[in-house]
Amino acid sequence: MKVVVMGLGLIGGSIALDLKQTGKFSIYGLDASEAHLKKALDLGLIDQAADEQVLKNADVVILAIPVNAALTVLPGILDQVSDTTLVMDVGSTKTLVCQQLETHDKRRNFLATHPIAGTEFSGPSAAMKGLFRGKTNIVCEVEKTAFKLQERAMVIFEELGMRIRYMDPKAHDKHIAYVSHLSHISSFMLGKTVIQEEKNERDIFDMAGSGFESTVRLAKSSPDMWTPIFKHNRENVLATLEGYIENLRQFKTFLEQENYEAIYHEMEKTNRIKDILKGITINT
Amino acid sequence: MKVVVMGLGLIGGSIALDLKQTGKFSIYGLDASEAHLKKALDLGLIDQAADEQVLKNADVVILAIPVNAALTVLPGILDQVSDTTLVMDVGSTKTLVCQQLETHDKRRNFLATHPIAGTEFSGPSAAMKGLFRGKTNIVCEVEKTAFKLQERAMVIFEELGMRIRYMDPKAHDKHIAYVSHLSHISSFMLGKTVIQEEKNERDIFDMAGSGFESTVRLAKSSPDMWTPIFKHNRENVLATLEGYIENLRQFKTFLEQENYEAIYHEMEKTNRIKDILKGITINT
Repeated sequence: MKVVVMGLGLIGGSIALDLKQTGKFSIYGLDASEAHLKKALDLGLIDQAADEQVLKNADVVILAIPVNAALTVLPGILDQVSDTTLVMDVGSTKTLVCQQLETHDKRRNFLATHPIAGTEFSGPSAAMKGLFRGKTNIVCEVEKTAFKLQERAMVIFEELGMRIRYMDPKAHDKHIAYVSHLSHISSFMLGKTVIQEEKNERDIFDMAGSGFESTVRLAKSSPDMWTPIFKHNRENVLATLEGYIENLRQFKTFLEQENYEAIYHEMEKTNRIKDILKGITINT
Repeated sequence: MKVVVMGLGLIGGSIALDLKQTGKFSIYGLDASEAHLKKALDLGLIDQAADEQVLKNADVVILAIPVNAALTVLPGILDQVSDTTLVMDVGSTKTLVCQQLETHDKRRNFLATHPIAGTEFSGPSAAMKGLFRGKTNIVCEVEKTAFKLQERAMVIFEELGMRIRYMDPKAHDKHIAYVSHLSHISSFMLGKTVIQEEKNERDIFDMAGSGFESTVRLAKSSPDMWTPIFKHNRENVLATLEGYIENLRQFKTFLEQENYEAIYHEMEKTNRIKDILKGITINT
């Protein structure tokens, strides 16, 4: 099976690597950056570098580029592929891309997916084997994709070791704002607050423990990837931020009022996140 | 050397375990909870369970209980120990404990320390070998401790594998508010916000990835330990919260205004947390 991976960063590169190593697929790589393309070849993520000419003979095209760029290029990709090609995106927002392609002639060649996996690193050298194993892949509007191509997608996801959840794109974007997008903002702003205060970086380094490292880990993430995500999912993200700021403000009020009973209660209630998180496969 | 560990939770239990395994110390354990004391014995964290009678013949007493309880019992412990006993606390706030003991007759028997290590778990079964290896131990007002007892403390810290940083208690409390206490609040409130929104826990579970797990990890922490810390360090914590909420509010304003250039810039600036964090030993 001829698989074209467009965008050889953390996600695209890791998909390419896992599929290549099964020996069942020929992996063709494309990337806007010549350096990334070369790096992906050197690292053995892909079988060969290609250009857009490869699209018309592809069995599967996987698009792993920032969500704004994906929106722009997807109609043209669908125009170029054959009637039997499966085109999938793997972006972190799903409403706009589904809307964008709703009336496209080749809508049935497209599958909207969001594999929930990653690290805070980016680029081909961040690609890793087994990144998706045991993780969830959210698939949206599956009924709009041709049945045979749904099947082909399942073969790919099975090779990657993912479990599938089907979801409406609007529900996806709303929920993911809470469990992913808000985490990134909370982490970025935590990093910012500490950097602002601690002019002497040496002090941060010496006193920061694993707790701090864990909460600011996501502040290492790529602005190129995340700015378009916040743009696409603006309304949902604003709602999460509203709730988050309000909760912080209330905690601050309790502390101002020296209402330690309320503070205790806030933490005790939230402790049940333990049970909720049990079973999430941690990828570090 | 006869070492008494009072409080056999994550920190006290881990100290006891590491010291016991060197074979150089006899470890006597005390805990307000009978069940914890028994558990610590069963797990082999201590050589034997003891009561307060043991204090008068101790070479070293390590107090590893919540900071409010430590404040209450420390004067009495110092009253009971001999002139040649070293008493150390390991609490996360240092100003109040140093003030509390400032005029105590046995001030020179006391050393204020804060080993920066831990996990989100608590109790004797959370104790782990090597928890402190390569981590920083902040020591406050070292000059107020008898020279010989400073030396004895260094022997202990060396066995645990810790590197020492000397700091003024007020500076400690201010800095630690940023790199530890704020992280805990941001994590608790993130957990709260998501739980509030997502009534159906199954949805959180299915969509949450490693990023979310990482940012809410600290929300599993013990309210018994953390409420007194926030109380002790109230003013510093309020200042960090003020700054954090303001930064979140500004990010929200940028998003409302669709000022994606500013959002990009915010993240790009904060990306340098990467370099700051390089070298922090992660304990997970």
